[in-house]
Amino acid sequence: MKQEKAVVVFSGGQDSTTCLFWALKQFKEVTTVTFDYGQRHHAEIECARNIAEELGVSFKVLDMTLINQLSANALTRDTIKITEEVGELPSTFVPGRNHLFFSFAAVYAQAIGARHLVTGVSETDFSGYPDCRDTFVKSLNVTLNLAMDAKFVMHTPLMWLDKASVWELSDQLGAFDFIQQRTLTCYNGIPAAGCGTCPACKLRSQGLEEYLERREA
Amino acid sequence: MKQEKAVVVFSGGQDSTTCLFWALKQFKEVTTVTFDYGQRHHAEIECARNIAEELGVSFKVLDMTLINQLSANALTRDTIKITEEVGELPSTFVPGRNHLFFSFAAVYAQAIGARHLVTGVSETDFSGYPDCRDTFVKSLNVTLNLAMDAKFVMHTPLMWLDKASVWELSDQLGAFDFIQQRTLTCYNGIPAAGCGTCPACKLRSQGLEEYLERREA
Repeated sequence: MKQEKAVVVFSGGQDSTTCLFWALKQFKEVTTVTFDYGQRHHAEIECARNIAEELGVSFKVLDMTLINQLSANALTRDTIKITEEVGELPSTFVPGRNHLFFSFAAVYAQAIGARHLVTGVSETDFSGYPDCRDTFVKSLNVTLNLAMDAKFVMHTPLMWLDKASVWELSDQLGAFDFIQQRTLTCYNGIPAAGCGTCPACKLRSQGLEEYLERREA
Repeated sequence: MKQEKAVVVFSGGQDSTTCLFWALKQFKEVTTVTFDYGQRHHAEIECARNIAEELGVSFKVLDMTLINQLSANALTRDTIKITEEVGELPSTFVPGRNHLFFSFAAVYAQAIGARHLVTGVSETDFSGYPDCRDTFVKSLNVTLNLAMDAKFVMHTPLMWLDKASVWELSDQLGAFDFIQQRTLTCYNGIPAAGCGTCPACKLRSQGLEEYLERREA
């Protein structure tokens, strides 16, 4: 794979930034693609762009505002409260969102001559999104290859890692400090440690504590 | 299925109009969805809208101009000549186009509470589009159900029919005259019998002749 090109589906969060560092070790050339679907925090896109620039990889924003024609949701409508119950399907859910994103990423990859697709989805911290599951990704990989007569390989380096292990991986990749300081995970748009109270911040900080305890032990 | 809702992927051409008549016999409620991707013949969308109105089914246009960000092609760039060689991949090809269209149709279907998707793709008059093949459609059906935890059923009533048999089906559905007079197949945007010289017109008229000979025999 060292001689090949990869496209990383990139949001500027902890997970996809870890994947970006991972991809930079695996592939000759890495491109990031991010999706603008009118999410509340445009800060997220700027954060992603800054990280890509700093790491010297190209950065492509694809306009996906079309998906808002199809379903109202809390990420794009400020009036809907973000669900905070653990275990429920979050109100931020756009059905099939990852399916659409990965499919566009594949068409883009083919256009630039890349066949490797990297995403940070994980089944471990299962959030109720069916299109984060391993079985979905494998099925989509087959479907894309049939759809485009292609040989895409979808990589999901975080699929079976819990958040503590994602921190561990970033440490192994020499990216621990960078990711802690520069990524944006928070639903309320606050970078690094974030607001500390939204579900995404809680997951991130719990994983970090767990990893730090493990590292010190 | 008589009590269920279906979404027909609809362009106003011979094939998808035949599928629309087919679906109207199979399902309680039928909705059409069409895709605006900046194709040369906006006449196509108006033709589709008129047919839907006349048949009393609802009609939804989804903006897919995003795909033009991803690849230049003859359908959307007037300067590129449309390939007329039989057997070659046509220069009208947008890689993965049907994959994207059917995926959006599925998200739309879920939003309106429909689980049946109907498309006029056919493997018989194989045009070089890998995402017209039966194996692709079946794989996408599985992927969509995994992606959205859904029970979509994709219907492809024309998959194994040649053009003469599509005319025969429209006759059985009582739609032969309507489809002959009202649909638009021609790459040059001329309705009914069309320009007569583009590959789509040739395929349509050869099939019609063959069917009429068969019917008279």
